[in-house]
Amino acid sequence: MKKFSIAVLLLISVFGTDILHAQSKAAWIWYPGDFEIWLGNKMQNRRTERGAFLPPFWRMDSHYVLMDFHKVFNLAAPEEVTLYAEGSYNVKLDSKMLPGRPQKVTIPAGEHRLNIKVYNQNQVPAIFVQGKTVVSDSTWKVTYEDKEWIDATGMVSSQSGTKWLQAGSWNFHDPLMPPSRFKLDVQPQLPVKTTRSGQSMLVDFGKETFGFIQLHGLKGNGKVAIYYGESQEEALATTTCETLDQLDVQQAAAKDSTMPLSKAFRFVNIQYEGDVKIDSVSMLYEYLPVANRGSFHCSDEQVNQIWNVAAYTLHLNTREFFIDGIKRDRWIWSGDAYQSFLMSYYLFFDAPTVSRTLLALRGKDPVSSHINTIMDYTFYWFLGIYDYYLYTGDETFIQQFYPRMQSLIEFCLQRRNKDGMLEGLPGDWVFIDWADGLSKQGEVSFEQLLFCRSLETMALCADLVKDNAGAAQYKQLAAGLRTKLFAYYWNAGKQALVHSRINGNPTNYVTRYSNMFSIFFDYLNEAQKQGVKQHVLLNDSVQQITTPYMRFYELEALCAMGEQNYVLKEMKDYWGGMLKLGATSFWEKYDPKEKGAEHYAMYGRPFGRSLCHAWGASPIYLLGKYYLGVRPTAPAYKSWIMEPALGGLQWMEGTVPTPDGDIKVYCSTKQIKVQSGTGTGILRFKSKSKPVCAGAEINARGNGVYEITIEKGKAYEVKYGL
Amino acid sequence: MKKFSIAVLLLISVFGTDILHAQSKAAWIWYPGDFEIWLGNKMQNRRTERGAFLPPFWRMDSHYVLMDFHKVFNLAAPEEVTLYAEGSYNVKLDSKMLPGRPQKVTIPAGEHRLNIKVYNQNQVPAIFVQGKTVVSDSTWKVTYEDKEWIDATGMVSSQSGTKWLQAGSWNFHDPLMPPSRFKLDVQPQLPVKTTRSGQSMLVDFGKETFGFIQLHGLKGNGKVAIYYGESQEEALATTTCETLDQLDVQQAAAKDSTMPLSKAFRFVNIQYEGDVKIDSVSMLYEYLPVANRGSFHCSDEQVNQIWNVAAYTLHLNTREFFIDGIKRDRWIWSGDAYQSFLMSYYLFFDAPTVSRTLLALRGKDPVSSHINTIMDYTFYWFLGIYDYYLYTGDETFIQQFYPRMQSLIEFCLQRRNKDGMLEGLPGDWVFIDWADGLSKQGEVSFEQLLFCRSLETMALCADLVKDNAGAAQYKQLAAGLRTKLFAYYWNAGKQALVHSRINGNPTNYVTRYSNMFSIFFDYLNEAQKQGVKQHVLLNDSVQQITTPYMRFYELEALCAMGEQNYVLKEMKDYWGGMLKLGATSFWEKYDPKEKGAEHYAMYGRPFGRSLCHAWGASPIYLLGKYYLGVRPTAPAYKSWIMEPALGGLQWMEGTVPTPDGDIKVYCSTKQIKVQSGTGTGILRFKSKSKPVCAGAEINARGNGVYEITIEKGKAYEVKYGL
Repeated sequence: MKKFSIAVLLLISVFGTDILHAQSKAAWIWYPGDFEIWLGNKMQNRRTERGAFLPPFWRMDSHYVLMDFHKVFNLAAPEEVTLYAEGSYNVKLDSKMLPGRPQKVTIPAGEHRLNIKVYNQNQVPAIFVQGKTVVSDSTWKVTYEDKEWIDATGMVSSQSGTKWLQAGSWNFHDPLMPPSRFKLDVQPQLPVKTTRSGQSMLVDFGKETFGFIQLHGLKGNGKVAIYYGESQEEALATTTCETLDQLDVQQAAAKDSTMPLSKAFRFVNIQYEGDVKIDSVSMLYEYLPVANRGSFHCSDEQVNQIWNVAAYTLHLNTREFFIDGIKRDRWIWSGDAYQSFLMSYYLFFDAPTVSRTLLALRGKDPVSSHINTIMDYTFYWFLGIYDYYLYTGDETFIQQFYPRMQSLIEFCLQRRNKDGMLEGLPGDWVFIDWADGLSKQGEVSFEQLLFCRSLETMALCADLVKDNAGAAQYKQLAAGLRTKLFAYYWNAGKQALVHSRINGNPTNYVTRYSNMFSIFFDYLNEAQKQGVKQHVLLNDSVQQITTPYMRFYELEALCAMGEQNYVLKEMKDYWGGMLKLGATSFWEKYDPKEKGAEHYAMYGRPFGRSLCHAWGASPIYLLGKYYLGVRPTAPAYKSWIMEPALGGLQWMEGTVPTPDGDIKVYCSTKQIKVQSGTGTGILRFKSKSKPVCAGAEINARGNGVYEITIEKGKAYEVKYGL
Repeated sequence: MKKFSIAVLLLISVFGTDILHAQSKAAWIWYPGDFEIWLGNKMQNRRTERGAFLPPFWRMDSHYVLMDFHKVFNLAAPEEVTLYAEGSYNVKLDSKMLPGRPQKVTIPAGEHRLNIKVYNQNQVPAIFVQGKTVVSDSTWKVTYEDKEWIDATGMVSSQSGTKWLQAGSWNFHDPLMPPSRFKLDVQPQLPVKTTRSGQSMLVDFGKETFGFIQLHGLKGNGKVAIYYGESQEEALATTTCETLDQLDVQQAAAKDSTMPLSKAFRFVNIQYEGDVKIDSVSMLYEYLPVANRGSFHCSDEQVNQIWNVAAYTLHLNTREFFIDGIKRDRWIWSGDAYQSFLMSYYLFFDAPTVSRTLLALRGKDPVSSHINTIMDYTFYWFLGIYDYYLYTGDETFIQQFYPRMQSLIEFCLQRRNKDGMLEGLPGDWVFIDWADGLSKQGEVSFEQLLFCRSLETMALCADLVKDNAGAAQYKQLAAGLRTKLFAYYWNAGKQALVHSRINGNPTNYVTRYSNMFSIFFDYLNEAQKQGVKQHVLLNDSVQQITTPYMRFYELEALCAMGEQNYVLKEMKDYWGGMLKLGATSFWEKYDPKEKGAEHYAMYGRPFGRSLCHAWGASPIYLLGKYYLGVRPTAPAYKSWIMEPALGGLQWMEGTVPTPDGDIKVYCSTKQIKVQSGTGTGILRFKSKSKPVCAGAEINARGNGVYEITIEKGKAYEVKYGL
């Protein structure tokens, strides 16, 4: 998952470009993070369960209601600019307030400072400025307290101590479509089958989908109920299906009616009373318009189908933010989102959806609980930042949000026990995984491991923002905790980290979690790795994982140790198992031992389980990173490596997106073709025969390993033999 | 100002009743402090200056958008209750969610828990619950994070670690008038004089006032401009008056038109163009309906007029919150509000307006600047809490907001220099007073003095909430700082605290500020007091104070030393001076040496000065506390003292309001009459002759001082001789 060392990352970070600064056209801008928090509130408070409002159980923050935006311009010629704002606003040119609420302002030639101050309680204060060269974009500065007091003579204070950040923005380039009007796109879609029976209709859209149900030609007087089902069984279970709509129709003339809330379903069961008539049913499919830049295709049709269904699953769950699942919570869960981030780097590479999700998860200070109240989910947030920087190179994000990282890690540090370890205190949910009988007592090794990795991330970010004291402190804390991890949990007899310590004593209980993470965290020496592989990962007597969530990491650990052949079989077995049961998207939980309707139940409810859960889509990540074998070794793919591994396939081909351009690869047992649009890559491969590549130098690294340097814009064709 | 010792206060605090708990009828409730912050945003972002929007320059916080309310009821019989909520909501009875959004719920007999969870981004989540005995009031518990997660079987977490506070409420007892619809009251009023001249009208309302201008019978086509003036000069100065309205009229039929924003004025100058016609002009006077419970009347008509104009001034500035002045900022300034609190205890005794103002000032964590960005204003906030508790006995307020006190004092402690003193860092406004050439450099003694008092307040509150470690820490910090105050600033030669230290060296500069505060803080020994009195307070060569703001404390210090005769003359001179200039309310600044229009100018603007400023109303406080001589000696007037001082008057009479009932007093040189509706009072007075009081024991205290214990509900008539 992250094999590069911190040292390498830091060395190369000076090349990191600021991807947020590529903008040149006018955009709506706001205080960074504020639109994300506001939109997160809107989305996460839209959940209903059988008609009842079901909001999150953690604190939701808000935007700053009063915002000052400014930029200094140096103009060759005077320029008239048009101003738009969401909220009450005033305009200052060179600190002098203009009368009223000007809609246009002329900036003279020379150096001038334009300030716009906006108040908006209900929505995020935002501005849009459009001139010939003067435009609003993320190079503007913003603050929520300008501290511009005046003395009795009217003089403005000279030293305000105000902190200015760079403005946040996204893709709002239309002055008449401000951020508060944001909506996902929609597209009409028809069902594949409608079955009528008396006063009911069962409508099948052919696959898992999401959107607004539309009733066409609705008329008459009476009640209409719409029962949604991810399965036919759920749609028909009118008393236990998870979501529904209820209408009271009183209309003589036929009208089309669109449901107000979008929902997840494959089937809808519509039941109506009185003389109600409905001509037909369709839907408005609702989605975030992000393209699949990544691709994967191979000689195994089942694997192709797994990749396609995984991509569809991730797309359905990639909405205002990366959500957990489309039917039920539709909340932003940090552990779930973390996996979506990783998958998305191999599918959409849509950095704004990652940063939007990170910001909405974090909220604002003060920290009063773990993210989503879950201890592990706080740590996944840090891990997500680590990867976000590596994949996107967005240093501005680190600069702007380092204070929020500091306060969150401080919250964790304050909760350590006398041994410096974290236990679940009242209010802390120790989650780990949905697994029967999993102990959360005492000092769980998995939590300390993630905590250690979070401290390493803090050290990395502290270096980036030149917080030298912080960097030293975090490095020391991380090193100390890493030492304790092995001193406290490593059981040489079991060749594994044990699950926990209780009252200072290690238990004898071994679980997969900390062991598999310690592999791709590179915390183990080679002997320990082999021990863990044999005694834990490939040991069926250690409790099996039944969520795609933790299968993700289990299979990643095995891939990181070169077990692509084994993992491919597991993948076909597990994800293929869901496909055989008719899955059109991947599930929250899949236990091959369950039968029939057992697959739909969870949380004590017969249809509680989500059949379209983001964490089900991990094959995208595994196939991109460990089969196509492409990953960055410096931020934003300024350098990268490709180690293709067929894992038993005859051939495979695919595309890995990067901030700069795509990396394309074809690989069979005899040939590797590579074309890259970014950075400097290393193609590393094994060959029994001496490889041949026209126009490229091939370096032998011993043991049959060869390397070729891949330059941007060039195509390579390697003949070799496996 | 506060003569009782901390020890006494603590001893008696066990009698403190919780005045917020007196409610029995249903009220709208919310998270405490949230409505106050929301309303504060609304009010403080309503300022315009010549049509331009002029918001504050400090951070404005917001309400929590997602709120859980609950209460456990034990019912003798089942009860149907009606539910109202501002926002999306759900209802749980005994942790089981009810379907949909129920408007009524029946609670069975026995013990049951009712939870209502509300989401509202735009307004404060609030509920109103009305049953026979089940009602929403401040005994309900609220939290912004209930942390009610469930495990895979649907079980709710047993130990959530959630902090519940008691709900906030005010006077919203109508289910159809929720908090978001709050408005001040209005009342139509007519001008005393309207002068027409061509296409203009000059309208005089006879005195300073506040409200919405109404144009009657407005018709025609053309522009109308309304120029507001606290003085006639300002209304006529169309290019420099501070506030105005501009209308574009296009109406054939005559209509009445009310301006959208209320403003301060005595005069309005209306100018119109084209064929515009206006029949007449009136206003809707806008006010907070609080009664003058306190009163003062005496043998000197000028003093009576001063008291009346001061009461009117304070009432005009007592609105959604205590504001600074009605014309210009209309913001909540902590230093200004602090004085309004003290005055209000002798006029309205409206505790909610005090607590509302304290909460809006404080906002939320994290603390990123001093209150209003001003160092001294942070400290006045602590002082305000000290007095609020003493006058009202509202211990719940301390309990609920102690964490916000802690984080604010922590912000101050973090800003100390290596000597443990506070200097103005970038972003800190060291205000003290509007005074020409006043130095703010280095360690200003006045700021350390207020800081010390704030630490003492923290110690007091820590004791109240039983934070023993905190109490010990704050006491130690306060004692240390108090020692330094005298070690660093006391100049024996000058018999005064000097103004500041710069680079660790005391200056030779003496100002009145720290010296006068140290008197009523009781920080000086008797010799020092006399020294300060002679060498500073009564020494004309020490820079004179020209704001009623600091006159307040200067005269309080003199009153505290028994100089009521001197102070009465000063009061007549200073406030009487404004009256002689035609003041109908008291001003932001009054310098008797200024002439004509100089009285209107400030901040470099010809009409920048406010002619109706809350801090101008201090005679209310001085006359109530130091002439009628009534003040609490235990929280909520459970015990109190009355030391009448005529200060040269022939007689005076008045009422001092308390939470429980009024204290009425009449005092002449021969007779004192007292009637009390609260607590246990001590009447202390001097008499040359042996006093007589039927039915009361008179205790001689020596030196001609006598005391009588005043019991609640009884009347006393004392004959004595001055």
